[in-house]
Amino acid sequence: MKRIRLTVAYDGTDYAGFQVQPDLATIEGALNQALFHLTGETIQVIGASRTDSGVHAYGNVAVFDTESLIPADRFAPALIPYLPDDIRVVKSEEVPLDWHPRHVKCRKTYEYTFYCGQAEDPVTRRYGSYVRRLPDVEAMRKAAQYLIGEHDFTSFANPSSQVLMAGGSAVRTIYELCISEEAPDSIRGTGLTTVRVRITGSGFLYNMVRIIAGTLINVGTGLWKPERVKEALDARDRTKAGPTAEARGLALCRIEYKD
Amino acid sequence: MKRIRLTVAYDGTDYAGFQVQPDLATIEGALNQALFHLTGETIQVIGASRTDSGVHAYGNVAVFDTESLIPADRFAPALIPYLPDDIRVVKSEEVPLDWHPRHVKCRKTYEYTFYCGQAEDPVTRRYGSYVRRLPDVEAMRKAAQYLIGEHDFTSFANPSSQVLMAGGSAVRTIYELCISEEAPDSIRGTGLTTVRVRITGSGFLYNMVRIIAGTLINVGTGLWKPERVKEALDARDRTKAGPTAEARGLALCRIEYKD
Repeated sequence: MKRIRLTVAYDGTDYAGFQVQPDLATIEGALNQALFHLTGETIQVIGASRTDSGVHAYGNVAVFDTESLIPADRFAPALIPYLPDDIRVVKSEEVPLDWHPRHVKCRKTYEYTFYCGQAEDPVTRRYGSYVRRLPDVEAMRKAAQYLIGEHDFTSFANPSSQVLMAGGSAVRTIYELCISEEAPDSIRGTGLTTVRVRITGSGFLYNMVRIIAGTLINVGTGLWKPERVKEALDARDRTKAGPTAEARGLALCRIEYKD
Repeated sequence: MKRIRLTVAYDGTDYAGFQVQPDLATIEGALNQALFHLTGETIQVIGASRTDSGVHAYGNVAVFDTESLIPADRFAPALIPYLPDDIRVVKSEEVPLDWHPRHVKCRKTYEYTFYCGQAEDPVTRRYGSYVRRLPDVEAMRKAAQYLIGEHDFTSFANPSSQVLMAGGSAVRTIYELCISEEAPDSIRGTGLTTVRVRITGSGFLYNMVRIIAGTLINVGTGLWKPERVKEALDARDRTKAGPTAEARGLALCRIEYKD
């Protein structure tokens, strides 16, 4: 018996999220099925991040145990024929049998993408949220400063979060929150400016990154002053923060473990 | 009666190309249907470029005649509710009644995208062709020099081209052929290098850009010496050029008219 850790990338557009759900296409379901076809074993992977429906990933992590004699690093290429085109195992490696992707300290990095300009672009639409107005990125950066560090993020979590419902803490640490702006390519694309919110933290509450993105874009489009984000944070009240930005703009970039 | 010119962007993944075909989803069919719903008139647009199944566009052009009183520039926003998410009219404007998108001299720019590296990326897969080996871009640039200028491109056209079958000329002019290389973002994506072939010409034969892309990547991966591209061009024989690169990597970027 050995435990294998997979680094998984996917286009989440056509999936009902990571976690297995009856009669729905999920990332976890596709991985379990591919591993069954490859090994003949009934395998249920354990995922690090249960990303929502429509959310993408470049480096989600999942583990499983197997008696298979396939070398650990060969699982990634061997799984290709058994997975749909929109899911790829980027890396596979052996980890200790007691290693669990949700019980180990880590840093997670997410990125939220906005495409901003006159007309929505049909080619980028799957991977970003569309905003007609060009946002004031400097105001967004000012607002973002209030969120960096250790805070109670109750205002920035979906109240139906399992953690919060069970009385868990809403205290999380944001290590980095960077906002980048990329001018449109004059030939490729339809002239949209790309604004990305990249955020690294110790962990995130349910919908936290999307609520942060929705709040910061409220500042960017001038609806809110940057200071209102501090008030929202201090209130510890979900109704005081901005809207939950659409799933399609979110991508889980990577999870760094200290192992 | 007035003639309206549309600039159209689309994600071609889920379409059987631009041109109307019975029982298949096409860009032209979607435009005709949307215009019928908007104006009540039976409209058949005339497209500038009949892009193939799976090919994308940021700036294809189509015209139609209408008795509608909708101001010319309002067609673009007015069509949004009648078009699927993967097709957008970026611009609409009035042109003279005798203006025809295929009878006027123009410069067309296409871009072919390769994603290169260890593992295919499920997020970029729709918009580029995957190459495992990192290509030698300098060798590709050297090979590209042979193609710039006015040449007989028989070797770089699908022999079933309607133009060639009808005895038409295979002489075309390539004004620019640039190859760019973009290093992978260390956090976003799965570590693929992007190589783009951007090509501007007076017009292109059937599959010409995809055959040029397939030939240049043969050089990039070391399968061919750059000089072999000159030999292929001189041979005026399709079997002497490289393979036709996949449709998903191709995008029609823009068409420039001198009007």
